[in-house]
Amino acid sequence: MRYFEDFTPGTQFSLGPYTVEREAVLDFARSFDPQPFHLDEDAANRSLLGGLSASGWHTTAMMMRMMCDSFLLDCASHGSPGVSEIKWLRPVRPGYVLIGEAEVLEGRLSQSRPGFGICQMRNALREQGSGETLLLCDYAVFLQSRPADSP
Amino acid sequence: MRYFEDFTPGTQFSLGPYTVEREAVLDFARSFDPQPFHLDEDAANRSLLGGLSASGWHTTAMMMRMMCDSFLLDCASHGSPGVSEIKWLRPVRPGYVLIGEAEVLEGRLSQSRPGFGICQMRNALREQGSGETLLLCDYAVFLQSRPADSP
Repeated sequence: MRYFEDFTPGTQFSLGPYTVEREAVLDFARSFDPQPFHLDEDAANRSLLGGLSASGWHTTAMMMRMMCDSFLLDCASHGSPGVSEIKWLRPVRPGYVLIGEAEVLEGRLSQSRPGFGICQMRNALREQGSGETLLLCDYAVFLQSRPADSP
Repeated sequence: MRYFEDFTPGTQFSLGPYTVEREAVLDFARSFDPQPFHLDEDAANRSLLGGLSASGWHTTAMMMRMMCDSFLLDCASHGSPGVSEIKWLRPVRPGYVLIGEAEVLEGRLSQSRPGFGICQMRNALREQGSGETLLLCDYAVFLQSRPADSP
């Protein structure tokens, strides 16, 4: 189990690979982001996005799953107070395989919640095939400090 | 149809009501954010979140649906380059009814994409029952300028 003290600045966690399934793109769009360019090939081709692509919020959801599978389920995380930046740099197309990294930028002990720390983190997601960066996301995570009786 | 020119600073759009269904909270968590405090009542009670709550990325997805239903499907939006802030202020519990507003902060014509503008927007989501603010989100939207032949 990883605690706040294990998230030292510069620590990196690999994310992915995670395949963007076409049906998942359409399902997410139908539920949460039914704009024509996320649902319809022709409308997507006519849009600035230049073709069918995942909702940006689907991309952040897939990123979250990649974080869980990489490190979050094995650490003393208690959620996040927020995000200080998301850049949706390029459209995320059906069929893409997403890879990337989560990096610890800095950490500090919480003043208001003794026994907890807050880490600032940065994620980058890339398309495995081209290596192009698709998304950047800076965010914070609440992490429990290592208990005194923990190895 | 609303174009960039219709998104003048101060313009507001009502969001919701949108009911947070317990099964939807669990479904989203199973797919995208399987941290114990989003899936299991006991683990949630022991966490900083103090009880079962929606993944923050589920909340932003629900927010997106509220935006589509309110104004996005009836305007010349071409997606978003990114988000400059998300604050997850309070846990979003199953059973909550979400309401809120999207407000235009400022707009400018795009230099790189003639015929398009970029608006900075701010969303606030509240719980209908208590009126407490749950989420703030600042983001940008690409909007087509009104065509010369449009009424």
